[in-house]
Amino acid sequence: MIKLALIQMTCGDDLGENYDKAVGYIRKAAGQGAHIVCTQELFKSRYFCQTEDSANFDLAEEIADGSGTVAQLSDLAAELSVVIVASLFEKRAVGLYHNTAVVLDADGSYLGKYRKMHIPDDPLYYEKFYFAPGDLGYKVFRTRYADIGVLICWDQWFPEASRLAAMGGAELILIPTAIGHSAFEDQAKAAAYRDGWQIVQRGHAVANACFLAAVNRVGFEESPESGVGIDFWGRSFVADPNGQIVEQAAGDREELLICSIDLSHVEEVRKGSSFPFRDRRVDSYSGLTKLYLD
Amino acid sequence: MIKLALIQMTCGDDLGENYDKAVGYIRKAAGQGAHIVCTQELFKSRYFCQTEDSANFDLAEEIADGSGTVAQLSDLAAELSVVIVASLFEKRAVGLYHNTAVVLDADGSYLGKYRKMHIPDDPLYYEKFYFAPGDLGYKVFRTRYADIGVLICWDQWFPEASRLAAMGGAELILIPTAIGHSAFEDQAKAAAYRDGWQIVQRGHAVANACFLAAVNRVGFEESPESGVGIDFWGRSFVADPNGQIVEQAAGDREELLICSIDLSHVEEVRKGSSFPFRDRRVDSYSGLTKLYLD
Repeated sequence: MIKLALIQMTCGDDLGENYDKAVGYIRKAAGQGAHIVCTQELFKSRYFCQTEDSANFDLAEEIADGSGTVAQLSDLAAELSVVIVASLFEKRAVGLYHNTAVVLDADGSYLGKYRKMHIPDDPLYYEKFYFAPGDLGYKVFRTRYADIGVLICWDQWFPEASRLAAMGGAELILIPTAIGHSAFEDQAKAAAYRDGWQIVQRGHAVANACFLAAVNRVGFEESPESGVGIDFWGRSFVADPNGQIVEQAAGDREELLICSIDLSHVEEVRKGSSFPFRDRRVDSYSGLTKLYLD
Repeated sequence: MIKLALIQMTCGDDLGENYDKAVGYIRKAAGQGAHIVCTQELFKSRYFCQTEDSANFDLAEEIADGSGTVAQLSDLAAELSVVIVASLFEKRAVGLYHNTAVVLDADGSYLGKYRKMHIPDDPLYYEKFYFAPGDLGYKVFRTRYADIGVLICWDQWFPEASRLAAMGGAELILIPTAIGHSAFEDQAKAAAYRDGWQIVQRGHAVANACFLAAVNRVGFEESPESGVGIDFWGRSFVADPNGQIVEQAAGDREELLICSIDLSHVEEVRKGSSFPFRDRRVDSYSGLTKLYLD
């Protein structure tokens, strides 16, 4: 049994305040016995992708072992003996940026990073402007408490991503997220889309018989350009290997969601009736490496 | 808008009675305006895979345009102007059998067959004894009323199968099924597994932004060997491109489920917010053609 903590929070304009708030939650989670803590996507800032503005590239930081935010979170992980998965805006080189998550083990060691593979471009989610698609593949991090696959937001809609994480050994998939409703949307359609967001991820948990947790931001953030904005829908959740919701956060407020999960359930389900790997017809899957079959 | 009819029924020992019952439902469905009718898996017989008995190979039939059941269903489809998707036990050659579905267009023309790709082997589901894995890939049938991808039962747990059907142009995926609880199972686990069965398929509908319908058998069938058996859980359902349940049948009785669906919803969702294909990272999916990544 391990305790997983998801930090679902609002973000303001002040990066330092956002960071301090997240650190406060990480300390609180550790105080409540959490073993693994995960932030929402880009937790240090507002969701700046609502507009295409070069000035926002200055929010990015270099990500490397022993420097900057990685060093700070590493010290914190070691102090609290918790695994930390944190989503950051990475400056890889001059003019090359990624949407990246880092993993710190419970002894503070930096286990590496995952770069978001699937990049959206949707009204108010202009991510293709900011983020080069990831080039590190679907990484699994062997932490003290669990083998964790990390995906980021838009990745959550693509079954290929979760499958590859599970095939790499993930017993738990963590997905920092920033998703919500925009004023453009019809209300009924918006609710169906939001429900679909949860269903597809629960589906990944079933298909791979693993745990999956999505950590979403919450609160309304206005777009600087149009006077509209995104109402981030929160609802961070943890699903078990049968796709059942173990815990779910509120949709309208900050919440530190702490959830106990039994990782042995993964093997139990995979042996019991699920067999997510044994019967795969790998001889018939080459079409998946094409964009469409026409 | 089209009307889809799913035939969820019990089966007895008499093949002729089972067949006549299904035909009765097809006629009833057509009378109620159905455009597409789909049977459950292996609807002509009891689910014989509960034991490994060579005598059951005699239940199989050759499947070819203009002969046997195909010819009968073809005449029926033409008479009623309905598309029929029917699951049959195929004798391909002496000693070579498949779990196969055939598709008859609304003018009676035989559009071809799909052979179940993923074959289970689980207590009371000894399908690897009976069925050679399919070798026709994931076929999409362009019928008068819809472009239909057909999968069969165990395929429903594998996201690769639904994805390849959708990539082949399926706007609707039909899945004849025979799944239930066996006496071996713990009740709480059984319910979680049954819920997972629906969640994973709703997840496929979301991931591919298409309609998906599963047609399951219902009723208890005793195993000839052990005195136990399978209680087929029915619950045939139709999910829309957001994964919402449009209609669902009962779990404990026969039911002809008729459901109106608007196929234009597929394009609407795919254009609106879902983008199931545009952002796929096909350069990163080659691992899917391996059994595991180790």
